[in-house]
Parts: sequence; structure tokens; C-alpha cells
Amino acid sequence: MQNFDYQTPTRLIFGKGVIEKLPEVMAAIGKRVLLTYGAGSIKKIGLYDKVLELLKDFEITELPGIQPNPKYDPSVLDGVRLCKENHIDVILSVGGGSVLDCSKAIAAGAMYDGDPWDLISYKVKAKAALPIVDILTLATTGSEYDCGGVISRTETNDKIGYIDPLLYPVCSFLDPTYTFTVSKKQTAAGCADAMNHIMEQYFVEDASLLNDGFCEAGLKSLMINTKACLANPNDYRARAEMMFACTLGCNGIYALGNSPSGWPCHGIEHALSAYYDITHGEGLAIITPRWMKFILSDKTVDRFVKYGVNVFGIDPGMDKYEIANKAIDMTYHFFEEIGIPMHLRDVGIGEERIGEMAHHIAVNEGLDHAFVPLTEKDIAEILTASL
Amino acid sequence: MQNFDYQTPTRLIFGKGVIEKLPEVMAAIGKRVLLTYGAGSIKKIGLYDKVLELLKDFEITELPGIQPNPKYDPSVLDGVRLCKENHIDVILSVGGGSVLDCSKAIAAGAMYDGDPWDLISYKVKAKAALPIVDILTLATTGSEYDCGGVISRTETNDKIGYIDPLLYPVCSFLDPTYTFTVSKKQTAAGCADAMNHIMEQYFVEDASLLNDGFCEAGLKSLMINTKACLANPNDYRARAEMMFACTLGCNGIYALGNSPSGWPCHGIEHALSAYYDITHGEGLAIITPRWMKFILSDKTVDRFVKYGVNVFGIDPGMDKYEIANKAIDMTYHFFEEIGIPMHLRDVGIGEERIGEMAHHIAVNEGLDHAFVPLTEKDIAEILTASL
Repeated sequence: MQNFDYQTPTRLIFGKGVIEKLPEVMAAIGKRVLLTYGAGSIKKIGLYDKVLELLKDFEITELPGIQPNPKYDPSVLDGVRLCKENHIDVILSVGGGSVLDCSKAIAAGAMYDGDPWDLISYKVKAKAALPIVDILTLATTGSEYDCGGVISRTETNDKIGYIDPLLYPVCSFLDPTYTFTVSKKQTAAGCADAMNHIMEQYFVEDASLLNDGFCEAGLKSLMINTKACLANPNDYRARAEMMFACTLGCNGIYALGNSPSGWPCHGIEHALSAYYDITHGEGLAIITPRWMKFILSDKTVDRFVKYGVNVFGIDPGMDKYEIANKAIDMTYHFFEEIGIPMHLRDVGIGEERIGEMAHHIAVNEGLDHAFVPLTEKDIAEILTASL
Repeated sequence: MQNFDYQTPTRLIFGKGVIEKLPEVMAAIGKRVLLTYGAGSIKKIGLYDKVLELLKDFEITELPGIQPNPKYDPSVLDGVRLCKENHIDVILSVGGGSVLDCSKAIAAGAMYDGDPWDLISYKVKAKAALPIVDILTLATTGSEYDCGGVISRTETNDKIGYIDPLLYPVCSFLDPTYTFTVSKKQTAAGCADAMNHIMEQYFVEDASLLNDGFCEAGLKSLMINTKACLANPNDYRARAEMMFACTLGCNGIYALGNSPSGWPCHGIEHALSAYYDITHGEGLAIITPRWMKFILSDKTVDRFVKYGVNVFGIDPGMDKYEIANKAIDMTYHFFEEIGIPMHLRDVGIGEERIGEMAHHIAVNEGLDHAFVPLTEKDIAEILTASL
């Protein structure tokens, strides 16, 4: 086990109807609220009206229209400006991981005098950030229980994971009923994203028995419950279990004391969605089995055997490579079965920019230090195999 | 899944040599320190000198001699008095769970004007508590990552679990090397305590797939790593994995959203160690399999089947009751194998006070609301079967 230094101060309020506690939680933080949200699905499900009704005694400034793969310009910049102009005390993010990621960058930018990109690009370390409360409407990123956010800058094709302990939400409201209306496409993509979060922590050189068991439980829970959500979108128990497994995805609990992995699939996928603005979870589902095939070797095969036996129930008596390859195939087929397009061409990505993306990834993502180190050529090969 | 409201603000600093960060952590909290510890094992392993050297710029007041099953009188009362007399800013607990539990009660008592028993007995809710930092030397209770402590009051045979969110340690230093010198007896008892913490969360009516997987991983990790620690007390990896699995035991992560269990084995054992001052983990190991046999029924058998198959690898094709009984027997034999005396008589408890203890438990522990409700007669039967 490696040394670690771990703290997750966020309060999780989980379950049906918990939003009634919102005014009490908000009142303890501040009165002037920046309400951030996306394309308006929160209006369709009545959540927008509910929030305004509960916060009728607060001063609300709105930042709507935050997109998936949230953009530095205009969303982060607009949010920072609104916070400064209106002396905002607290940001209330209502939506999925993109809205929350964007809100985190705004929270830091609002307390900084210069260009917020200085912070996101790690040129300057934030000294403070506005407090954030969130109401989650999509189970996937785990942003509600971590201190990171991913921000895209279109003109430079940058997609940066901005991480700072100042960015833990103060409180996350997790009501699984808000995810009943999430489409099959987004439910499946959310599952793939959350599963990949766990895989990025599972495929490492040094892991504890406990962490392996946690990761295997997370993966199995996500697979079983996602299928149940797709079969019956209003299945409370399945939506709840899926939400909870996603929430734990990025806060470290699945991998405390494990050696680092470098998060290679995320490193590769960030370029895909920066260049082509595809759905992050779909990009991950496409990359993951190709990356697995690529890194399978005598060094890694035992890890794949453990994965195959404990997650997919493959017979441990089989040949090691047979188990490993079967596990990778079962990963692929699971994603296919839940309806994810499994080729880059299916999501509008051809071979034209593979070289350019591989170069961008090699320069920016540090995958030469991944569990299995990846060169620019390796990355191009994984991308080509994903076409 | 049940609704839940969860927050664990404690910072965990884990691994070999992490104590070097102590001055930095302490300096951010305060200068006047109450140093609490037990019988002096921290002097034998050099930790006492190390702490004093690291904190040479702090004002240290000492409270030594805190016993296992820590006592209200004198330890809590002395600690509260020392805090008030010396205007203590922060308590530094160096030792195992008993020292830390005692420190928590002191932390609350120090900020209260009346008799600290008012707080521990829930007559009065604490409004504040001193901050606590701890350096752990024994893997077992999980007190380093929860907000509870168990305090004994000898004259009334009370042993109360005092829980308040104010009592989360600010920071827990977890260096597995400090547990190298823990005796075989205490290592085994620590394992039994930690395993029972998980079982108390696993044997419930409603549990998520994720929690079941977490609990099963925790139990398996504890069993494998405890055996490794007993075989080689200086096995860093085994000590580290054991410490980490114990740390997560009582902070809720093993059972978020599960229905409550009532912690029946702890309820019963608290009377044993209150009346006879036995080692808590040994009492739990003795009670657990008898309690299991007692509650095995058509209502609970499926839970025992899951436990037997997933924790002990019992063939799922066998008859349900056969699996359940085998799982209970394997639990018993595991405790026996790691050297725990498995009869109450072995730890000096005869049948003389069973009626009295059963009555005390029935009145004070609320086990009529446990996973399987227990009456005074039931409790007496479990105790008698444990003789």
C-alpha cells in the first residue's frame, strides 16, 4: 500500500424528497445565489420551479445554458462575471456533472482577480473559492463528491481536468427520482463513464485486497443496475444504486493507497470530446476495450484475470490469456448491449485527425507515466483500433 | 435504498513516516495540547519521544493511563479538568481506540459547564467540542474515522456509545508500522471487533449491491491480512491493509442507504465488558456465532447464504441451511484459528450474572428494534449458549 492523504468534506444528502432540506443548508452559507443549470431539462421535470419556490427568500442570479463538455468561453467567463457583479455568496448547481464542473471553475474564478484560465491551466494556485451546493440530475461523473471539474476551451482543443481541494461541494443533494427522465443514451453513457472511473483505479500495479473488492462491487453494481434502469427508467432502487455507485467514483475511496494509474482512457478521451464534442461516456466506452487489448501482456495479464473472474464470473480454471481476452470481450459486449455505439466512426470521428489528437494527448496528458506507459504512437494505435 | 445524510470531514494521513506532518497539522489548530495516552506502550516503541520532539514548540499537558474500555472516572473527568485548567486548544490522542474514545468524551466535556455525563448519557446535546487529532497505534475500532466513542461507568455497569458529529477527529495519522508490536492477542481481538463492525452493517433487511460488495471485501481483507499479521507481525502490507479496513469500519461507508441493524452483538457485548472488563473484540467474537445461530431462520437464511458464498467461498449449489450453518461454523473456526478464546468461561464469565446482564441489555440497548428483534429472554439464551 502506498501512503495517502485523504479528505472528502462534502455532505451527501441522499434519497427521495431530500430537497426539502435545501433552504436550511443554503441559509447557513449565504443569501446571494448564482443558480447554474444546463439546457432546461430541470424545467421539464419541475425542479427549476421547486428550487425557486424553496429559495424564495434568497437573491437568485441565473446562469443557464451550460453545455455538456462545459466551455470556458462563454460559460465559465460569464459565471465569474455574474459572481463578481452580484457579490454572490454561494453557487447552486442544478444538473449533471457538466453544470457542476463548470460551477467549480466559476467558484475559483470568482475569487481570483486575473484571467480564470490561469487557475484552470495550473499557472496560478487558487487561494479561495466560493462555496458550492449542488442538486444532481444525472448519475455519472462523481463530481458531486470530488474536487475536480473538466473544462473545455474550444479554440485550443484543450480539455483540462481542473482539480483543487477548495472545490469540494459543501453539500450534494442526491435524489434518484430526478434521474427517472434521463434518456437511455445518457443513462448508458453515464454508466460507461462511471465504470471507467473505477477501471482507471483498478488497473494499477499495486492495489489492496479491499480496494479490489470495492472496485469489483462498484463495477458489478453499475452493470446490473444500469440494465435495470434501461428496462424500467422509473425503477427507484436501480436508479438509487446507480447514483450512489457513480457518486463514489472519483473521490478516491475506490483506490486509497493504490499506486497511480495515470487515468489513460480519460487522457485519450478528453482529446476526442475536445476535438469533436462527443458524449464523454461514449468516447470512454469505445476507447476502453481497445486500450485493454493494447496493454494486455505478461505484466498485466494477472490483473485482467482477477477482473474477469471477479467481475464477470469467468471460470478461473481457464488459461490466463483466455480469461483476459474473454473479460475484454465481455466489457465490449456489455457496452454494446446497453446501446452504446462502439466505433469512433459511429460518433462522427474518422481517421483524419488521429495523428493530431495522438500528438496532443502525448504532449498534454502525461500518459508516459500511466500504469502501462503510452507513447504517441501507442495512442495513435489505440485510436485507430477504435475506428 | 434508504435515505441518508452523510459526512465524514476527518483527514486521513496514512502510511510509513507520515508523523513528520504532525507539527504542520497541529500548528493550524492551536498551541496548547492535551496529550492523551494509555499504559505506556507508546513509550516502548519510541512514539512518545518522537511526538514530544516534533511538538517541542507546543505547550503539552499530559493525561496518561487511559485504560481499555475507558472509564468515565477517573479518565474523562481528569481530562476535562486538565483541559479547563490549562485552556487546552486541541487534544492529541496517541494510542488505540480506547484512548481516542476517551479523548472524544473529554473534547465534548471540556466545552460544557455541567457534569460531562449529561452529554455522554444524551441528557444534554453538546454545543461544541475541542478539536481532536490522533495518532493510531492499534487497528480495530475505526474511532479514527467516526464521531463516536464508548465510555464505561464502573459503578453503574454502564457502557455507552456516545455519538455526536462534533466528535470527528480533525486529522488521523495512520502509520501501520506503529502496529508491528501489537500482541497476537490484541491483533486477533482487533480483527474480531472490526469484522463485527462490518457484520453489524451487513446483516440487515435492505442492503445495496454495492454495500454488500464493500462489506464482503472488508471481511475477506480482514481475515486474510490478520492471518498474515499473526504469521509475521512486521509484514507492512498486511498491517497496512488491516489498518485501512478497520478505519472504514464505523464511519458508515460500508452501509450507506442500508436499513438499520441495531448493532445487536455490540449491544450484548457492551454489557459483558462493562460487567467484567473483558477485551471487547474477544467478547464480540464469542457472541457473534451464537447470535448468528440464534437468528438463523427462513427470514434471514438468504442473507447467510450470500455471506457464506461470497465471504467463505461456500458452494452456492448446496442446500440453503447447509450453507448458512457452514458459514456460521466457519466464522467460529476463523476466530478460534486466530487464537481467540471462544467461550465466556474462558474469559472469566460464568452463568451467575447472565440474567442481570440480559436485563440490563434489554432495558438499555434497544435490541427490540434490531434486524432480528431480541427480547430479554433471547439475549439470555444467546449469552447462555456462549458460556
